[in-house]
Amino acid sequence: MDRIIYSVIISFVFTLALGVAIIPMLKRLKLGQSIRDDGPKSHFSKAGTPTMGGIMFIIPIVLVSLALSTRSYDYTIAAVLALLGYGAIGFTDDFIKVYMKRSLGLRAYQKLLGQILISVLFALYAYRSVGSSVYVPFTNTEWNLGYLYIPIMVFIMVGTVNSVNLTDGLDGLASGVTLIVSMTISIIAAFAGYAMEESGLINMGHNYKNLSVLAAAITGSCLGFLRFNVHPAKVFMGDTGSMALGGGVVAIMVLLRMPLLLPIIGGVYMAESLSVILQVISFKSRGKRIFRMSPIHHHFELGGMPETRVVAMFMIATVLLCLIGLLAV
Amino acid sequence: MDRIIYSVIISFVFTLALGVAIIPMLKRLKLGQSIRDDGPKSHFSKAGTPTMGGIMFIIPIVLVSLALSTRSYDYTIAAVLALLGYGAIGFTDDFIKVYMKRSLGLRAYQKLLGQILISVLFALYAYRSVGSSVYVPFTNTEWNLGYLYIPIMVFIMVGTVNSVNLTDGLDGLASGVTLIVSMTISIIAAFAGYAMEESGLINMGHNYKNLSVLAAAITGSCLGFLRFNVHPAKVFMGDTGSMALGGGVVAIMVLLRMPLLLPIIGGVYMAESLSVILQVISFKSRGKRIFRMSPIHHHFELGGMPETRVVAMFMIATVLLCLIGLLAV
Repeated sequence: MDRIIYSVIISFVFTLALGVAIIPMLKRLKLGQSIRDDGPKSHFSKAGTPTMGGIMFIIPIVLVSLALSTRSYDYTIAAVLALLGYGAIGFTDDFIKVYMKRSLGLRAYQKLLGQILISVLFALYAYRSVGSSVYVPFTNTEWNLGYLYIPIMVFIMVGTVNSVNLTDGLDGLASGVTLIVSMTISIIAAFAGYAMEESGLINMGHNYKNLSVLAAAITGSCLGFLRFNVHPAKVFMGDTGSMALGGGVVAIMVLLRMPLLLPIIGGVYMAESLSVILQVISFKSRGKRIFRMSPIHHHFELGGMPETRVVAMFMIATVLLCLIGLLAV
Repeated sequence: MDRIIYSVIISFVFTLALGVAIIPMLKRLKLGQSIRDDGPKSHFSKAGTPTMGGIMFIIPIVLVSLALSTRSYDYTIAAVLALLGYGAIGFTDDFIKVYMKRSLGLRAYQKLLGQILISVLFALYAYRSVGSSVYVPFTNTEWNLGYLYIPIMVFIMVGTVNSVNLTDGLDGLASGVTLIVSMTISIIAAFAGYAMEESGLINMGHNYKNLSVLAAAITGSCLGFLRFNVHPAKVFMGDTGSMALGGGVVAIMVLLRMPLLLPIIGGVYMAESLSVILQVISFKSRGKRIFRMSPIHHHFELGGMPETRVVAMFMIATVLLCLIGLLAV
């Protein structure tokens, strides 16, 4: 379907153009990143790199995906609203960090509350639109979650958004991994759309294909963003970007009724989150750390692996996980 | 088609395993790369990095593609032989460089002669098997080249092999770009295979699908190789690797009757070659250089762009070119 390819290309070019325009502006506005005091020392030199670069890809993703959608695209609108909602929380967080020079931004409970609110609204919409069944990977069965659908989806959505946020800790990591994940989702959604159409569900088919176009726009924008974000990064996406990306990805998967595929294709996001959780549990219960530092990308870095190689390794792992994901549907 | 995905995964794992086994061996054998005296100064520190790493992916590509082929796979055998032939020339070249410490290896005319020989043999095989017509990108037409088919294919093959060879000048560049190119070829070959089958050409369909599996094996192996080859590289592929990759890619495209698509999806290879040609012409005719240094990746490097960003830029450009290539078929 040519529309998917156009979506990648147009959002790529759009993001590149915005990058050229916005990065000098972000620099002038002194919207530089404060680097966490407790992160690896080698990262201290990154202070001053402009952040909030996420707006460079949020705008193209939203405009391109809506412009290229045809017929029924209410799913796309819902997913885009989720993406914008999480992005807005990230933006608030970044804004407080940068303007008030408070390295930590919003308080954790404030972010979480906002995320839960958006997730509940989205889960209710999904429940009404696509029902309470989800596909089980590697099987041909569906799993009807009943009313548990809402809390489980909220958990998956909040978990994904924060996991992508944690992944965003090395140059090109979150954008590189999400590029591959969203490309995979785009392929899955396109095939699912064709299958729907063939079985006579025309509206559903269009909605799925339009979700494929949205995922393709995420791919193209991440690709364009990588041009500036690759090591040594000229710009960071900030929470603005990572929460929007996580929100976009998870929203599409929920609407495709494939949220259970996310732990596979988004295995890197999962690993980042799990490493933080395990580290905290281990430290609180045994007084010992499991990893040199969490999230896990810092563990490898402090083990002496160059930043570029950690990013490559995580991207390569994502390609593999996505291939396994394609086998699972 | 699950076979394509398995091909990527198995050759990836195979290459990783070989890497772990072979890199220390290459190091002990002191098969380190001599760095060209006239290259960028920043590259002198790369002396001593083991080269000839290409064998790490040649073995998996050959074994996995043959093992996963079904029914008619004479095209796969022909393409694999071409890959091995060019790889052998590259190997000889590397061997002379490393053992005899002659930085330049085989003489240019010796390499060219060997390449032309393999190309003529392959072009004759292709002429007999798939005929003298090639698809014209962006049209639905074919172009019957008649007897000119042989010299034109030889030109395209020799050109591609040497272009990929020139591309192999920065950490992860040739493997990263070829990863994307071969993935695209795999997709194109798979769709072409289905189309053949649907139009009743069952044998041709199987051959195309098996070529798709071969291209997927190249993708998986490049991905595995990148694990070690990404900046800062632990191993180089050497001429062994770059000529084998170039040979494999061009052989598949010739058999698919789509060699004219290569200048599009392999636009980066083209740009590398053209930059060298233009530089030489300009210097000989006007006494002036066009680029700071050729091939063109050094031009960007000497312009102050970090190596990692040049590689990312060329890979991103390749993704775009491959998407355009998908629109062209």
